[in-house]
Amino acid sequence: MSSVLSGIKIAVLGGDDRELILISELVRMGATLVVAGFPKEKVGHGAFVVKSVEEACKDAEVVILPLPGTDNQGVIRAVYAEEKLVLTEKAIAKLAPDALVIIGSARQYLKDWAERYNFNLSEVIEMDELAILNSIPTAEGAVQIAMEETPITIHGSRTCVIGFGRVGVTLARVLKALGSDVTVIARDEGQQARAYEMGCIRAGFSDLRDVLSHTDICFNTVPALVLTKDVLNYANPDMVIIDLATQPGGTDFEAANMFGLKAILAPGLPGKVAPVTAGKILADFIPRLIIKELSKVDNGFLGN
Amino acid sequence: MSSVLSGIKIAVLGGDDRELILISELVRMGATLVVAGFPKEKVGHGAFVVKSVEEACKDAEVVILPLPGTDNQGVIRAVYAEEKLVLTEKAIAKLAPDALVIIGSARQYLKDWAERYNFNLSEVIEMDELAILNSIPTAEGAVQIAMEETPITIHGSRTCVIGFGRVGVTLARVLKALGSDVTVIARDEGQQARAYEMGCIRAGFSDLRDVLSHTDICFNTVPALVLTKDVLNYANPDMVIIDLATQPGGTDFEAANMFGLKAILAPGLPGKVAPVTAGKILADFIPRLIIKELSKVDNGFLGN
Repeated sequence: MSSVLSGIKIAVLGGDDRELILISELVRMGATLVVAGFPKEKVGHGAFVVKSVEEACKDAEVVILPLPGTDNQGVIRAVYAEEKLVLTEKAIAKLAPDALVIIGSARQYLKDWAERYNFNLSEVIEMDELAILNSIPTAEGAVQIAMEETPITIHGSRTCVIGFGRVGVTLARVLKALGSDVTVIARDEGQQARAYEMGCIRAGFSDLRDVLSHTDICFNTVPALVLTKDVLNYANPDMVIIDLATQPGGTDFEAANMFGLKAILAPGLPGKVAPVTAGKILADFIPRLIIKELSKVDNGFLGN
Repeated sequence: MSSVLSGIKIAVLGGDDRELILISELVRMGATLVVAGFPKEKVGHGAFVVKSVEEACKDAEVVILPLPGTDNQGVIRAVYAEEKLVLTEKAIAKLAPDALVIIGSARQYLKDWAERYNFNLSEVIEMDELAILNSIPTAEGAVQIAMEETPITIHGSRTCVIGFGRVGVTLARVLKALGSDVTVIARDEGQQARAYEMGCIRAGFSDLRDVLSHTDICFNTVPALVLTKDVLNYANPDMVIIDLATQPGGTDFEAANMFGLKAILAPGLPGKVAPVTAGKILADFIPRLIIKELSKVDNGFLGN
């Protein structure tokens, strides 16, 4: 057991199998873990399981909320919780001074509370390191769905990747490595050049209709309506759409259905297809984030 | 419609979706197709669907049996047949002289009949071209199962491929491309050198115990008992075995079960995971084989 986080009280509120791996790692690093939203038998030794969010938050110096975060009413995604787990203002008011609250992305109410109660809010989902590492299970999950939902191999298939951000790049690389003919749709010419360098065909959004007319599998990563009725009208009738963008996705699903196109909305793949890998990613990333952020507020912390 | 096979009577006996694609291609090439073991509505235009194997075989110059072939009693694998489809000696006796019979691999009874009735028996499953092309859907199917059955990504996983024949090579390449640490177990030093060239770790069968102790996913391609109780006793307890060898596979499944190892026997993947691609492979390969073989017996055929 290491002691780098010794004496730090960390509350983990909800989540799934990934948080269980993270909890074990934080315990191993010497932190005091108080957990809500998991049954006792799921949580490893060394962490305290409590009944309520309020109890967990009391004097906590760090609060960890799951990557999918909460809804607008504060309901925390907690797959193992027996009752609805809600982040309340009462709980937040009990945090230690200058607490650090880690979440995928925060709703407005939480940002307001951060100002009111003066805690440090850290939204991690857009941080490059975490987003790129998470793009690996996302891309593999997308490929798994493509394998399951089509009667063809990825090898020799004509695929289209819409958007060339962190997920798009990883997915294009994986598809290319499996022997697919990959077309990347990107707005930015720099991204298009990178796609070309990787051996993909590069195209812009104005080419989408043409490209989809001879595409077998279309992966969307753009969180905006890009697969419109007008575009889908020209798609290869056997095309399968796998939409990886945050809900509600970037597909007009009603139109897809009308044209007889199979379309699957598949957000949040890492926790679903590879919870252990995704948990290890968190267990590697979050402790370093905690150490970095706590060092900022307390120069005495950790000998820095 | 082409006419390269014009006037040739071809009987297709049983099979699955792959044969349906093959039938369409043979019709397109001008052959006269007589089909048993499929309902009429499944078979495209231009092919005659008959009730019995005998009827289909009458005067047939070419007979196509499915890749999995028949059992020792002559029962043909025919997933869409309503009744048991049996290859009888009576049917074989009705073939045209010098007929060509194409099958994955033949049981002894069929080899005996080939001598007695003087037909040309062509066993295709071991032919390099077909075996290598089929190794693509096999490898993708194996990866799909691995993704479904493990909570980790292939990327960063420690995999082991036992046997470095046509399937082993393709599978190692695919796993490597996805970012796995691949160890190849091969007897032949030339194969070991090729595995090393591909960036894999090379090992022999005597290293199997050591290798499996730190393997996450083990793929077997060797059709002999290689994953013995003695070897499995040393395996990483979280290891998943995916056995691609012909039934009964190369795993002591009872021992695997005893040690709590998940072990999956997955033969015949191409027709299951990618029937359209696997059908196109047949539709490309079989007509060329027919043309080549018929040219041998009849120099006047096809103008050769």
